[in-house]
Amino acid sequence: MTTAVDTTVFTDLESEVRSYSRSWPAVFASASGSWLRDESGRDYLDFFAGAGALNYGHNNPVLKRALIDYLAMDGITHGLDMHTVAKRRFLETFRQLVLAPRGLDYKVQFPGPTGTNAVEAALKLARKVTGRESIVNFTGAFHGMTLGSLSVSGNATKRAGAGVPLVHTTPMPFDNYFDGETPDFHWFERVLDDAGSGLNRPAGVIVETVQGEGGVNVARAEWLRGLADLCASRDILLIVDDVQMGCGRTGPFFSFEVAGITPDIVTLSKSIGGYGMPMAVTLFKPELDVWSPGEHNGTFRGNNPAFVTATAALEHYWSDDALQRSTLRKGRRIEEIFANLSDSFDGVGCRGRGMVQGLVFDDPGKAVKVCGLAYDDGLLAETSGPSDEVVKLLPPLTVTDAELDHGLSILAEATAKVCA
Amino acid sequence: MTTAVDTTVFTDLESEVRSYSRSWPAVFASASGSWLRDESGRDYLDFFAGAGALNYGHNNPVLKRALIDYLAMDGITHGLDMHTVAKRRFLETFRQLVLAPRGLDYKVQFPGPTGTNAVEAALKLARKVTGRESIVNFTGAFHGMTLGSLSVSGNATKRAGAGVPLVHTTPMPFDNYFDGETPDFHWFERVLDDAGSGLNRPAGVIVETVQGEGGVNVARAEWLRGLADLCASRDILLIVDDVQMGCGRTGPFFSFEVAGITPDIVTLSKSIGGYGMPMAVTLFKPELDVWSPGEHNGTFRGNNPAFVTATAALEHYWSDDALQRSTLRKGRRIEEIFANLSDSFDGVGCRGRGMVQGLVFDDPGKAVKVCGLAYDDGLLAETSGPSDEVVKLLPPLTVTDAELDHGLSILAEATAKVCA
Amino acid sequence: MTTAVDTTVFTDLESEVRSYSRSWPAVFASASGSWLRDESGRDYLDFFAGAGALNYGHNNPVLKRALIDYLAMDGITHGLDMHTVAKRRFLETFRQLVLAPRGLDYKVQFPGPTGTNAVEAALKLARKVTGRESIVNFTGAFHGMTLGSLSVSGNATKRAGAGVPLVHTTPMPFDNYFDGETPDFHWFERVLDDAGSGLNRPAGVIVETVQGEGGVNVARAEWLRGLADLCASRDILLIVDDVQMGCGRTGPFFSFEVAGITPDIVTLSKSIGGYGMPMAVTLFKPELDVWSPGEHNGTFRGNNPAFVTATAALEHYWSDDALQRSTLRKGRRIEEIFANLSDSFDGVGCRGRGMVQGLVFDDPGKAVKVCGLAYDDGLLAETSGPSDEVVKLLPPLTVTDAELDHGLSILAEATAKVCA
Amino acid sequence: MTTAVDTTVFTDLESEVRSYSRSWPAVFASASGSWLRDESGRDYLDFFAGAGALNYGHNNPVLKRALIDYLAMDGITHGLDMHTVAKRRFLETFRQLVLAPRGLDYKVQFPGPTGTNAVEAALKLARKVTGRESIVNFTGAFHGMTLGSLSVSGNATKRAGAGVPLVHTTPMPFDNYFDGETPDFHWFERVLDDAGSGLNRPAGVIVETVQGEGGVNVARAEWLRGLADLCASRDILLIVDDVQMGCGRTGPFFSFEVAGITPDIVTLSKSIGGYGMPMAVTLFKPELDVWSPGEHNGTFRGNNPAFVTATAALEHYWSDDALQRSTLRKGRRIEEIFANLSDSFDGVGCRGRGMVQGLVFDDPGKAVKVCGLAYDDGLLAETSGPSDEVVKLLPPLTVTDAELDHGLSILAEATAKVCA
Repeated sequence: MTTAVDTTVFTDLESEVRSYSRSWPAVFASASGSWLRDESGRDYLDFFAGAGALNYGHNNPVLKRALIDYLAMDGITHGLDMHTVAKRRFLETFRQLVLAPRGLDYKVQFPGPTGTNAVEAALKLARKVTGRESIVNFTGAFHGMTLGSLSVSGNATKRAGAGVPLVHTTPMPFDNYFDGETPDFHWFERVLDDAGSGLNRPAGVIVETVQGEGGVNVARAEWLRGLADLCASRDILLIVDDVQMGCGRTGPFFSFEVAGITPDIVTLSKSIGGYGMPMAVTLFKPELDVWSPGEHNGTFRGNNPAFVTATAALEHYWSDDALQRSTLRKGRRIEEIFANLSDSFDGVGCRGRGMVQGLVFDDPGKAVKVCGLAYDDGLLAETSGPSDEVVKLLPPLTVTDAELDHGLSILAEATAKVCA
Repeated sequence: MTTAVDTTVFTDLESEVRSYSRSWPAVFASASGSWLRDESGRDYLDFFAGAGALNYGHNNPVLKRALIDYLAMDGITHGLDMHTVAKRRFLETFRQLVLAPRGLDYKVQFPGPTGTNAVEAALKLARKVTGRESIVNFTGAFHGMTLGSLSVSGNATKRAGAGVPLVHTTPMPFDNYFDGETPDFHWFERVLDDAGSGLNRPAGVIVETVQGEGGVNVARAEWLRGLADLCASRDILLIVDDVQMGCGRTGPFFSFEVAGITPDIVTLSKSIGGYGMPMAVTLFKPELDVWSPGEHNGTFRGNNPAFVTATAALEHYWSDDALQRSTLRKGRRIEEIFANLSDSFDGVGCRGRGMVQGLVFDDPGKAVKVCGLAYDDGLLAETSGPSDEVVKLLPPLTVTDAELDHGLSILAEATAKVCA
Repeated sequence: MTTAVDTTVFTDLESEVRSYSRSWPAVFASASGSWLRDESGRDYLDFFAGAGALNYGHNNPVLKRALIDYLAMDGITHGLDMHTVAKRRFLETFRQLVLAPRGLDYKVQFPGPTGTNAVEAALKLARKVTGRESIVNFTGAFHGMTLGSLSVSGNATKRAGAGVPLVHTTPMPFDNYFDGETPDFHWFERVLDDAGSGLNRPAGVIVETVQGEGGVNVARAEWLRGLADLCASRDILLIVDDVQMGCGRTGPFFSFEVAGITPDIVTLSKSIGGYGMPMAVTLFKPELDVWSPGEHNGTFRGNNPAFVTATAALEHYWSDDALQRSTLRKGRRIEEIFANLSDSFDGVGCRGRGMVQGLVFDDPGKAVKVCGLAYDDGLLAETSGPSDEVVKLLPPLTVTDAELDHGLSILAEATAKVCA
Repeated sequence: MTTAVDTTVFTDLESEVRSYSRSWPAVFASASGSWLRDESGRDYLDFFAGAGALNYGHNNPVLKRALIDYLAMDGITHGLDMHTVAKRRFLETFRQLVLAPRGLDYKVQFPGPTGTNAVEAALKLARKVTGRESIVNFTGAFHGMTLGSLSVSGNATKRAGAGVPLVHTTPMPFDNYFDGETPDFHWFERVLDDAGSGLNRPAGVIVETVQGEGGVNVARAEWLRGLADLCASRDILLIVDDVQMGCGRTGPFFSFEVAGITPDIVTLSKSIGGYGMPMAVTLFKPELDVWSPGEHNGTFRGNNPAFVTATAALEHYWSDDALQRSTLRKGRRIEEIFANLSDSFDGVGCRGRGMVQGLVFDDPGKAVKVCGLAYDDGLLAETSGPSDEVVKLLPPLTVTDAELDHGLSILAEATAKVCA
């Protein structure tokens, strides 16, 4: 027997723009690790993890300890862009555990605490450095909802929400857009080099190595290298938006490491704060640091509690390669199950890298049904892709093997029901 | 004897875009109420209060208790836009203590956790509702740094940072721009009604009731009423950006209450979360709620810890009118001191409302010097205005009378030194 | 008894965009001097003169002779931008009779044969020279219908026809927009000099000295001087669009001569060819001639028959000041009659300069009626202004005194009928 | 012995933007048929023909007679958009000889007398009809130099001249852009149908059937049919810009006839007036005629002398198929010679349709040299293509066989010299 859920205030007072609460109508009360609990006490295994903002799980106890201690001792909460002890520790730790071991010489900007802030700063900087306005983005891209980020995103409905024409951007085909029928950058390289093509010469290219919102589209390492080479040889800045795929989602800390490239600009947000609290950084090569003081700012660019949990997360998870190895191992486990499902049922495919994995249905309606059945069985998983045709998995990287298998078995069952 | 401050990692690793840390180079470690403490143990009275994000002071103990309890019991930290107990409590409390008593029938959108997210959502909505692209903003405006918000902001340097021409907006004179020489809306009304004026008919008008960044420019109540009437009669949406001036900064919860108007759309951020944690809302009349589900989103739009502290702040400070009365009283105290300074020294004026007050110097250099001397004496106060000619005070609303007097005496002394 | 006019092919085949033919449905067959004759043999006195393209009257015999001789001897008709004898003669004559006597050191560009081509070239050049995108235009402006020119025009209906938001321009109040209530450039100068105003710093300002389409709005000489000073002191280029008001319409060859200013860029078209054939020039100070070869072009930029008639017109009419004097004299005659009408009837005013004169009706419907009655009596005169409230007279400069009086008496009678 | 050419006034007074006069420095005095004569009496065979504006040759005697007669009898010269006898005759003749025989039911707009006017009107109309802003154009396109037309043109240098970012357009690959490696519309169709592609849904597509400026790039009939089908099935308007390729250049009156398609909108200019005088029309399906009266206008949209020569040209050349047949025959003659050259010399290719033919050099410098040598031998021929790598032939359609052979032999000799 379930208690009827009281959601009156949400339907009465909250805007129609609310979204996830429609698919998952429970009222959630608490959370821990891979699990959410609703107010009636029911538990849900979370394979969405804050859309990638909770790589270390909900209320990770290591980070929680650091956070509560910091709050308890009245550490700075709101610091604008002032020097703080917490920011210094974050910067030092980030340099020591992330940048230095990877040979990355980046300056760090705190552009405001969300992914779209980081992207807006990246686009501004690319334009300022080059003196050009145009940006090349890719089919299937998603980079955020403020006007600059939205202009480089692909989803037609979200673009229409801008209410003004979104300009200064030209989409190019993402990797595999034509399933290998055409050479990489066949079109992009040609129009770049043809002075009569009508392409506005771009300041930069913005790319996700794996497109999450776009439907778990995975760029191959050689494609990324080709893109980096193309940008370098034409004096175009390469921006990797690692907001969702960074912080270990694909295995290594940065998702582009697998390709051996060094982007000119990198954005991070979502899991960088570790504990699901707003934080973002924009990284760029030192020679690109042409900002004037305060030329970009934001009230919450110094969210110090997030610096504290970010530091704790780096120390705990990135001092060695254990997390990376377990992520790759668990990723292979998901791939295996998904491959089985793909083999067992017509019209089902799969793709992914590390712990972002998609189960792809030829019939988009089936993906939605699978997620609906999964929710009924206590599993949160979201669809993505232009037609919601992909069940996208983003479990916490800290999910246990048992939890993973449990969640995958729910999905397998749901798939069987839907595809039988 | 002071220990030399080690700021190496900031100068080495953080981008040149950092700003406040240049004027206030201390490394801050902890904070409480109206005070910041640096790592050497030195205390600073904070009359800037997170640019208005800390109306209830640093690490307010009432909110801190609620926050730590919530974290300790593993309340939801990251909730996207799912239903949560914390969000329900916030919505119910906001309705009961803020909307209902003021007769405001607004829908609430969580557009992402920062002021610029709230403004971007407001602009999108105004454009979607009206089918028009253009927005009228005002001289001296500041609304944020993402591309949409920046396009309605006035500061030429920040605008230049966009790297693309900022279009779809036309500035109109803010109240008192001509010191009463011309009737209110002389120009605006005329070009609106002249079908040959070349003004693109606006979807909406965005206005701050007091322009903080613009130099503490105060709109009179009658001007705001005139603006609301003008918008209503021409079918243009009125957006009040109350990110900095809302949450009691000018006395009442909303800064527009003094004018007796009901804007079509209102943005709140900064102090809405209470504890300096990122949170924002966009409010609008129910008939404007034409959003499709998910048409605007953002990873951190459900920052539940901020919902918790927001709720606690509302309950503690907005259940009666004590805070409002004390804000107005303290505001008058600042005005009194500032009026004295203005009387005593040539080239010094003052303006403000409630607890946002500006000391205005004919010679901009003097405002900068006053803030510099104040910092040396342990007081944080910022300049604003197009030429940094205004010392802008935004003390916590919870500042004690003694603290207020202490800070004002530092400022008075600094002013005397600079103007003597 | 009139033969029914056969206009079938026009209504069947020509687009709904046709306009003048709706007010003046006659089918015109021939023309001479100030007169048009329709195919039924009825004569119409033409006080519209091709919207200012026929300052020397229809089929002026002097120019006709030159033109037919040129065609007969197989002079170059179509010359792109090649050197031709006809172009050389035009350039030499233009320098000798127009530029040199006025001390004007301008380079000449043939930007394509219409006014809007000349304006587009002017805007491009101003942007290229300054590296800025924004242009300031004026309320009531009209500069043409291609996208660049339309963006600096005021009429809301025509702007809407663009189908894209018209941006990069900001309208400022034209002279007398507030009937002298505010100082000249009160708003413009202030927002230019306020770094927080939100005005995009303009590349140039484009202005008509008398706004024809806008309703015969006349800029005073001191206002034009003030504008030139403002532009010069802020490093903004001043573009005078003399397409309609140049070539003697206001008396002197250039309409800005009365103000003693030297614009940075000047556009001419309409009557520059003399005979109503398409021709245009863009003039600019030599130091602004930063064009690359072919950077702006157009198939008909070398309309050599128009060079021939242009040269003949300059030689015949601009070798002495007879035309200028007669224009001013006839202008005064119109003013006198219009002043009488204005004195005689309530709600009627007048304004103008030289031979562009407007009879202004408080009730716009009356202006339309007056033009309708005039047409019935064999006079062509058009309304202008945002509400079509102005009867605008642009008679050929070569109109005889008798013709002028005849036409004015028709107008006086019509006004009397409509206003009695 | 040659007289030194006096070009002082051109170099002194005319803008640096002048272009053809740099390659062909002669001062031309008269012209007849396929020949230009300079002031020293030297004759030049003209295989450029006013960039396609002189399909019937220079000063064609049939048209000249009609024109001089019209001028002599004081026919209307300048008619705005009033009904005139000359316009009626043109419309009736155009319907009878052009539209009706081809089963085309088009409305006719006179948008101003140049190609770019016609294109601007077409773009406005497509946007108004669909309510969308975006236009798809093609690599290598050229449509004109005013802001709207320039935004759909490809040449990077000309685009840069705009001085503002050119937006609202996305280039797609023209036919053969990848030499058949990819299926037609591989990329275009895919991004149109992918709701996540980021392509702004276009109002219309603008295309040349043969790109003249772009380097004589010929679209195959099946590609044009595919494009028409794609547009029709996606509710996108197809605009064929036939400014250069219409009026018989490729054989039939309209260049798209070969494909059996009916574009939604067609632009004509250049040779439509017949005699090299400015004239243009925009044609569109009746259901698209949503213009309001005067919503688009232009002073010279009623260039009546051009209506007269246009009518005479239609009557003389388009009452039967003789011209079309001779054009195709002469085109084959050029192809034959070009094919020989291509066979004889490495790095030389050829392409074209009807009487627009290109000789393509792998080494762009050689094309320039060939044209230079040809000029020395009394032949005018221009290069085109993004790198000026194509010798483009546009002889008058009325060129005699002997003239054609003479010109081709000059070119063959020049090619031999350059490629030997």
